[in-house]
Amino acid sequence: MAVIDKFLDGDRRSLAKIITHVENRADNYREVLARLYPRTGKTYKIGFTGPPGAGKSSLVDLVANQLLEDGEMVSIIAVDPSSPFTGGALLGDRIRMARLSNHRNVYIRSMATRGSGGGLASATKDICVVLDSFGFDKVLVETVGVGQVELDIVDTADTVVVVLVPESGDTIQAMKAGLMEIADVFCLNKSDREGADRLAAELEMMLDIRRHGSEWHYPVVQTSALKGWGVDKLQEQIAAHQTYLKESGKFEKRRRRQVKREIYQHLQDMLLDEARNRIGGDATVEKIVDEIAEGSSDPYTEAERIFREHFT
Amino acid sequence: MAVIDKFLDGDRRSLAKIITHVENRADNYREVLARLYPRTGKTYKIGFTGPPGAGKSSLVDLVANQLLEDGEMVSIIAVDPSSPFTGGALLGDRIRMARLSNHRNVYIRSMATRGSGGGLASATKDICVVLDSFGFDKVLVETVGVGQVELDIVDTADTVVVVLVPESGDTIQAMKAGLMEIADVFCLNKSDREGADRLAAELEMMLDIRRHGSEWHYPVVQTSALKGWGVDKLQEQIAAHQTYLKESGKFEKRRRRQVKREIYQHLQDMLLDEARNRIGGDATVEKIVDEIAEGSSDPYTEAERIFREHFT
Repeated sequence: MAVIDKFLDGDRRSLAKIITHVENRADNYREVLARLYPRTGKTYKIGFTGPPGAGKSSLVDLVANQLLEDGEMVSIIAVDPSSPFTGGALLGDRIRMARLSNHRNVYIRSMATRGSGGGLASATKDICVVLDSFGFDKVLVETVGVGQVELDIVDTADTVVVVLVPESGDTIQAMKAGLMEIADVFCLNKSDREGADRLAAELEMMLDIRRHGSEWHYPVVQTSALKGWGVDKLQEQIAAHQTYLKESGKFEKRRRRQVKREIYQHLQDMLLDEARNRIGGDATVEKIVDEIAEGSSDPYTEAERIFREHFT
Repeated sequence: MAVIDKFLDGDRRSLAKIITHVENRADNYREVLARLYPRTGKTYKIGFTGPPGAGKSSLVDLVANQLLEDGEMVSIIAVDPSSPFTGGALLGDRIRMARLSNHRNVYIRSMATRGSGGGLASATKDICVVLDSFGFDKVLVETVGVGQVELDIVDTADTVVVVLVPESGDTIQAMKAGLMEIADVFCLNKSDREGADRLAAELEMMLDIRRHGSEWHYPVVQTSALKGWGVDKLQEQIAAHQTYLKESGKFEKRRRRQVKREIYQHLQDMLLDEARNRIGGDATVEKIVDEIAEGSSDPYTEAERIFREHFT
């Protein structure tokens, strides 16, 4: 494929084409990924999550700007599992581009599509492979929402930053959403607002237990993306976590776990496609649904029958 | 199985046992579901979702109380995809039980377990089958969080109630989280607080577009679970939606779509189990990960190789 050769030469338009190709799961996308894979392993992935309205996008842009000033090549993936718009969130991406200082070394991509739940997490991982092989130093993955898929998406990052704001209410609510368990670094954004100190104190108290016996100190950084302060401290802590992961050997362990998950994920996708083909597509399934609606069968028996007939 | 016979006789302890059995995907759980399936079709499912802290639990309890007073048998499933505690959220369940008037006709179940993302949505569906066959008139499914899995869970309900509060910020944020698209009924809880009227007005404006050309009017109901007002109106609108679904033929269409999804879901689960067995379990996969880590292969090539070797 000529596009891949151009891509390997560092051509930006080919990068966008290949990402679209992979995101759409176009015919030979696994071959494309297999071809790029040997070039990966250098990109460091930072995930940002937290409740809607916490100012994640502004914060990610500020962090990206700092990295760009340090001479790094940076990519931002903004994942919105609930939005039907994918790739083409152009206006939003352009507004963001304008906030970033060095256009040449940054690449922004919006991902979305409601309903493809698990698929979205695996597409994000695959796109990270593409960006890694292209030579980006850092990929910042940002998610909207605080649900399970969002957690799965940022969970594939090397360092996970959880962004909270005074208005996000009780820390208990953040805990409930599972954010506390996946956070490596806490960021209290909008810290110029009332209630910030109380939230910080609450967090520190909760983290006491978690820090006990842990080699990592789970830092809490106060920022104001609006006023531009605290971002340098945030970046320091992200870098500290990166160092910690590498020195403790946890980095390698995390990566191995990810590879295992990827193998199973791709296998599962292929198996379901194969099943659809062997059955004879949706038309056959519609007939089965008729039978179930008439009360002469049930979904479990039918799934088992298909499995036995076609896979044993 | 003796438990099933007792279950079919209406024994409560057998109900709890069978739910645990199905939730844990114990050995013959599909057979159990197949046996119960012919008895299903009478339960109406109502889903409640919205941002954390919107007061969903209190509201669900109030709705349940009204239904119980009307002489209905009610079950509540509280799904928390981010909590590691499942089944045994006993303290919380007991506090809720104390709020409910008629213990004999209500059954509460908490579901959780982080990391089992998609599995949680399908387990919730299966438990609804169990409750349906037991004879519950209504199942109220409540989710914490506003992410993709949460949307998938309530999406299987017949009527979806989205609960918002004045503090939940801009309606834009709710839209972003995909809540607007799945809502059948909007509930503005904590409507005694400041900002409630503004939020109601914003919502009404946004719904104008959606109502245009639609046979359903997407009602907005103001409630205060704390003060106990508005709940009767909320229930009226839920009942109105139920009538609308049945009369328009949409009820049957929704149910057919669900059956189709269930068939594919079970098939996919069986296929992945089969794949694990045929490969020789995790140990084999660990060896493959070694090869990938050494740079002599990649996850895509390996998944494809496993697929070709074992399934073609």
